[in-house]
Amino acid sequence: MKNKLFDIWDNNKASINAWLSIPNSFTAEAFGKMGWDSVTIDMQHGQNDYSTAIAMLQGLSNSDTVPMTRVPWNEPGIIMKMLDLGVQGIIAPMINNKADCEKFVSYCYYPPIGQRSFGPMRAQVAYGSDYYQHANKNIISLAMIETKEAVDNLDAILSVPNLTGIYIGPADMSSSYGLPPKFDVKEDPVFSNIKMIVNKARGKNKIAGIHNGSVKYLKEMIEIGFQFTSLLSDFRIMTSHAESLLKELKNVDTKSDNTSAY
Amino acid sequence: MKNKLFDIWDNNKASINAWLSIPNSFTAEAFGKMGWDSVTIDMQHGQNDYSTAIAMLQGLSNSDTVPMTRVPWNEPGIIMKMLDLGVQGIIAPMINNKADCEKFVSYCYYPPIGQRSFGPMRAQVAYGSDYYQHANKNIISLAMIETKEAVDNLDAILSVPNLTGIYIGPADMSSSYGLPPKFDVKEDPVFSNIKMIVNKARGKNKIAGIHNGSVKYLKEMIEIGFQFTSLLSDFRIMTSHAESLLKELKNVDTKSDNTSAY
Amino acid sequence: MKNKLFDIWDNNKASINAWLSIPNSFTAEAFGKMGWDSVTIDMQHGQNDYSTAIAMLQGLSNSDTVPMTRVPWNEPGIIMKMLDLGVQGIIAPMINNKADCEKFVSYCYYPPIGQRSFGPMRAQVAYGSDYYQHANKNIISLAMIETKEAVDNLDAILSVPNLTGIYIGPADMSSSYGLPPKFDVKEDPVFSNIKMIVNKARGKNKIAGIHNGSVKYLKEMIEIGFQFTSLLSDFRIMTSHAESLLKELKNVDTKSDNTSAY
Amino acid sequence: MKNKLFDIWDNNKASINAWLSIPNSFTAEAFGKMGWDSVTIDMQHGQNDYSTAIAMLQGLSNSDTVPMTRVPWNEPGIIMKMLDLGVQGIIAPMINNKADCEKFVSYCYYPPIGQRSFGPMRAQVAYGSDYYQHANKNIISLAMIETKEAVDNLDAILSVPNLTGIYIGPADMSSSYGLPPKFDVKEDPVFSNIKMIVNKARGKNKIAGIHNGSVKYLKEMIEIGFQFTSLLSDFRIMTSHAESLLKELKNVDTKSDNTSAY
Amino acid sequence: MKNKLFDIWDNNKASINAWLSIPNSFTAEAFGKMGWDSVTIDMQHGQNDYSTAIAMLQGLSNSDTVPMTRVPWNEPGIIMKMLDLGVQGIIAPMINNKADCEKFVSYCYYPPIGQRSFGPMRAQVAYGSDYYQHANKNIISLAMIETKEAVDNLDAILSVPNLTGIYIGPADMSSSYGLPPKFDVKEDPVFSNIKMIVNKARGKNKIAGIHNGSVKYLKEMIEIGFQFTSLLSDFRIMTSHAESLLKELKNVDTKSDNTSAY
Amino acid sequence: MKNKLFDIWDNNKASINAWLSIPNSFTAEAFGKMGWDSVTIDMQHGQNDYSTAIAMLQGLSNSDTVPMTRVPWNEPGIIMKMLDLGVQGIIAPMINNKADCEKFVSYCYYPPIGQRSFGPMRAQVAYGSDYYQHANKNIISLAMIETKEAVDNLDAILSVPNLTGIYIGPADMSSSYGLPPKFDVKEDPVFSNIKMIVNKARGKNKIAGIHNGSVKYLKEMIEIGFQFTSLLSDFRIMTSHAESLLKELKNVDTKSDNTSAY
Repeated sequence: MKNKLFDIWDNNKASINAWLSIPNSFTAEAFGKMGWDSVTIDMQHGQNDYSTAIAMLQGLSNSDTVPMTRVPWNEPGIIMKMLDLGVQGIIAPMINNKADCEKFVSYCYYPPIGQRSFGPMRAQVAYGSDYYQHANKNIISLAMIETKEAVDNLDAILSVPNLTGIYIGPADMSSSYGLPPKFDVKEDPVFSNIKMIVNKARGKNKIAGIHNGSVKYLKEMIEIGFQFTSLLSDFRIMTSHAESLLKELKNVDTKSDNTSAY
Repeated sequence: MKNKLFDIWDNNKASINAWLSIPNSFTAEAFGKMGWDSVTIDMQHGQNDYSTAIAMLQGLSNSDTVPMTRVPWNEPGIIMKMLDLGVQGIIAPMINNKADCEKFVSYCYYPPIGQRSFGPMRAQVAYGSDYYQHANKNIISLAMIETKEAVDNLDAILSVPNLTGIYIGPADMSSSYGLPPKFDVKEDPVFSNIKMIVNKARGKNKIAGIHNGSVKYLKEMIEIGFQFTSLLSDFRIMTSHAESLLKELKNVDTKSDNTSAY
Repeated sequence: MKNKLFDIWDNNKASINAWLSIPNSFTAEAFGKMGWDSVTIDMQHGQNDYSTAIAMLQGLSNSDTVPMTRVPWNEPGIIMKMLDLGVQGIIAPMINNKADCEKFVSYCYYPPIGQRSFGPMRAQVAYGSDYYQHANKNIISLAMIETKEAVDNLDAILSVPNLTGIYIGPADMSSSYGLPPKFDVKEDPVFSNIKMIVNKARGKNKIAGIHNGSVKYLKEMIEIGFQFTSLLSDFRIMTSHAESLLKELKNVDTKSDNTSAY
Repeated sequence: MKNKLFDIWDNNKASINAWLSIPNSFTAEAFGKMGWDSVTIDMQHGQNDYSTAIAMLQGLSNSDTVPMTRVPWNEPGIIMKMLDLGVQGIIAPMINNKADCEKFVSYCYYPPIGQRSFGPMRAQVAYGSDYYQHANKNIISLAMIETKEAVDNLDAILSVPNLTGIYIGPADMSSSYGLPPKFDVKEDPVFSNIKMIVNKARGKNKIAGIHNGSVKYLKEMIEIGFQFTSLLSDFRIMTSHAESLLKELKNVDTKSDNTSAY
Repeated sequence: MKNKLFDIWDNNKASINAWLSIPNSFTAEAFGKMGWDSVTIDMQHGQNDYSTAIAMLQGLSNSDTVPMTRVPWNEPGIIMKMLDLGVQGIIAPMINNKADCEKFVSYCYYPPIGQRSFGPMRAQVAYGSDYYQHANKNIISLAMIETKEAVDNLDAILSVPNLTGIYIGPADMSSSYGLPPKFDVKEDPVFSNIKMIVNKARGKNKIAGIHNGSVKYLKEMIEIGFQFTSLLSDFRIMTSHAESLLKELKNVDTKSDNTSAY
Repeated sequence: MKNKLFDIWDNNKASINAWLSIPNSFTAEAFGKMGWDSVTIDMQHGQNDYSTAIAMLQGLSNSDTVPMTRVPWNEPGIIMKMLDLGVQGIIAPMINNKADCEKFVSYCYYPPIGQRSFGPMRAQVAYGSDYYQHANKNIISLAMIETKEAVDNLDAILSVPNLTGIYIGPADMSSSYGLPPKFDVKEDPVFSNIKMIVNKARGKNKIAGIHNGSVKYLKEMIEIGFQFTSLLSDFRIMTSHAESLLKELKNVDTKSDNTSAY
């Protein structure tokens, strides 16, 4: 097991991440084969749960993409179960302060760093019987910064040892500051927060990540220093293109708004 | 999205709620079509979980019944996942004090009321892309009052802003007071609690709800002011009738007791 | 393995059969515990398939009810897979002539009687490693008589060796004769067919079975010689009772018609 | 139940059909909401089977799209099970001669037209208890013309009473004539067959349908008389757009070829 | 309901426990039939979750083995849901102090002992309508001792009333003390801890349990006083034997190490 | 796509095949990783069906084992669906004469060899967009010889062009000749049949395969010319070893007989 994203980041490059909301192992496998640097199974707002994630991760193992997950909440049971399945990175929502973050990091790593329990059934099958020796240095932990409280506690959160980095949820951060929730935010204070966060993160040698609603915005985010960048989701990509084709066929307006949700 | 139950309640009427313990989307769809004002998927004592609830909610959308759920516990991950799926009401078990209740309410509503995270994937498909604008005023939050501790803290619980109402669990309340757990309780102190609770709730403009084991008791509860009334469950309705038919065929006694569990 | 129904029939009594349309293992288990002589998983018009039947049969093994199935069609693959799972009886739809019936019987029994393939994985776990020795004499095969063609070929069908008996589908037989499809038929020629069939079957030492929509009609059918009698279905029992309770609560008419479909 | 496609066709217009290969109820629901005239669940080359189709059909009922299916083969068990679930149209692959076609039609319709067995469990819940009265005139039956043998037998196939129409599989027809399998064929003899078939079908008052790989080709097919036109599939729409976005991000070539398979 | 393990323990004997990591109801049923005193469904490191456990427990009911589970974490929602399904024992991971243990015990038992919520749907079907009367005295609660913190707090943990006993996780305890995680530990301080813990537990009339990687070590553990002893897992038993057979066939080395994980 | 078994056979060596009866993707993945030359998902007597096979095949793709399946019956729908999923070999049961065999071969190969329908969704994702060009020469077709009728028709069956080879089912062949069904047969006429079949097959340049119940017998079969050799099944390997360990622990007799069924 060698987590490819660390190589990308060590070369000061940005990685491109796909986002899976559809609980299906074949669509997961197809995304793995496309060439995304990593693919994240969204268990929070996507329709995935533990049982559906098993086969999705098996499908992702058919390529060299890095399998990750966003868990529904900062809860040890599900984080450890997903790591046992072989995910190489965890994104935890709503990490609002240092205590949240310390707990999160403790769930992701074996002692002495953390309190992860031992029993990596599929991880050993997928990565070999020496998985335990390599796990702690190959697991990515990303704390979501998506509320005013988290922004206010940013320095403390970034000070947590062994945290790999942070991941900005632009929709929730907007909502928290009283703005309509959406991706690709250019309005302050959210946009200035985004710029501030990436700078602070890099200053503390943490990876900065963000969710994006368009290729254009994603590229801008890479420009200003983000190194873990996600684009839309399998579901949005499918429905926006299907609606666009139907519009060509029927001359009707498309119905969805890609920037409004995963 | 317009939650029909608020209309019923605003007209000072009571709504009738069906209760689903069987994890099956077709039986859910059939209940939706019957004409119950709302249908609640029980994830606590019923055999439902997140994955099985997806299709059940799709089946319920084929009618104008209001889809609700009782979650297994007052835990933000599952509450927010169910809201994203499009449930219009959450019943949370074992809300025993004000702190429990404040957390519960915070999970159900977007800022500034609460801390619900944004990403209503199916809710937007089912209710339209303006779901976010209408969600906070259409989501029902019902805190279960089912222990002596909760009864003792009733005033504090009812004082929590934005809580829609309370829901009495007669079996657990009986158990908490040392009585055998059952529905349709007439014994004190549980019965007097029931009457006290409905009065206090209405006095604070909160909806009062209760689970019932018979049509007769349910009608009495409406008489004394309850406005959200559930009857038995899909499972109990099926097995009690099947046992009654088998008894006619075989002249044997029925085996189950409808008032003893969901 | 000892099929209890043969004992009932050898004592010249009738067995009472429950009918499962809902693909759920817990409702199956509950029906098993109630005391029906047999329980039939309907894979034709019910929503069951092979995968859902596995756990249903495990649930049924928790009682001494006889597990049976109606297969979707007279096709060897599914008949043999269900027998391997441990069902003790097969009902095959639309057996319209002797050739259909001979094929059906051949699928149900090991050589030299038939051509059933050996590999009773769950049957051996459930009934013991000597399952093979006892299978042929304990498996029930019931051919459905439900078209005019089948009625016309009745003598030939009843002449097939090792066929246990026949099972009348009153709704399809009505449809075949140009009558509206329903259970509990009293109209000729279907009703006179029913009486003729039970007499011919008994005359050839075959078991006669029929599906019924009410306790009253079922008892009449036993009176005239039927020995395998089914009543409604789990789904109809649940929905008819739920609609009746809702009617009491809301004073609205029930919506379904129990005699019109499984 | 009123099948909307007949209205479109009676007005001499063409209907636009979506194609589902992904076995997921939420993506199905999303396609239903988009506004396609019909949505077809592909059980032959798509990854759908009976169990996954149940919830997909429930999701499709949340809109007024017409739910259809392509079955894996011309087999009565699965055709009747899908009709019981409420599909309003069946596409059967590899109908190569008149006998195949007569069997196919007989499976789709109740007597006296065909031999469909009665037991429309979900169809009655979805469309009402009078489903039986309306089923025969609202079910669409489309026979796939996709081999040289079928082309040679076209007149005989089109002569089968109650067949709604035919559906051209351009990839298999190409393969049958020794050409590489693909959609949007312009090479003869397949292209001349396509033109010949639509003319013959319309001459016999049968609906002509075809699967298409692009908006442009689909519109040409409508021009020449096709009235049931499908476009790509959910899977192809998703992967082609995802690959195109990834190419923008990474400047790499896309990997798939939309015209090569569903 | 009568929990057979208490009889074994009351006779001062040790019980033998099987361990299920594979989420499959048929393999569960097969283990139940073999004759293990109890069978534990592992929801922490095994691939089981709530939905897959339903049928596994139904399969286990086909024998007189005692069904148990290890939950993913000390969380009330899942503990109570599993008890409602009819498990007769709960193993909770990472019980590190008295407060953890008191919470755990409170989740397992009805008032007045604990706060378990009433609604034992499957438990009543499986064990009878008097389940409530017998539940508290038949449920086993085992707290996992698997960290240095837990060892340090052992006396306080053992002092919790109504806790049935403790269960040692040798791999995690090794990891917590800086040793490589494995079963069948002979190295100090873990081995001396194991001996100390069994003595302290028995001195307080608590059952001591431990997970083992070989028959030999398990027998030694019984010798020194352990009364609840688990061996490997379904998955390890299958893969180690399959690898051994393949080695015989191919003369290659086996790949897995049975003592390294469940 | 390059089917590795053809290389082994071209070098005049025998391949070793694992057999999966348990419908689980993780156990499938584990077998793939062990080093078996091929792994066959048994859909006839194993508990697998189409839906469960999807993830199992994804798990198998994580190694270079050759994925195969035994279908429930010689039926085109399921054979083509499994090929679309990416299996590289089909074993068809009960091929008793030349007509059966010609149909079977026609289902496995694209025109002009056969009538396989085009739409290899997962096969293209797994093996590349040029899958069609390589499919016909890389798919293995094995006809099961397991009845007296098949033995009598052996020459005709072996004469079918493009058939890869035959596969002996020793249990069914025993049953067909009036012997108790089992593996590792040494009794005549079955044993002499086995020797005759391998010789005739090799004489016609067809691969000969057989199912075995022990390492010893399998090696003998390789000695006499079999080149495709299967051993027991995942289920038998697991249960026999588990029973053997339990016997060591409890000094009780094992219950199962490995040679009696898959």
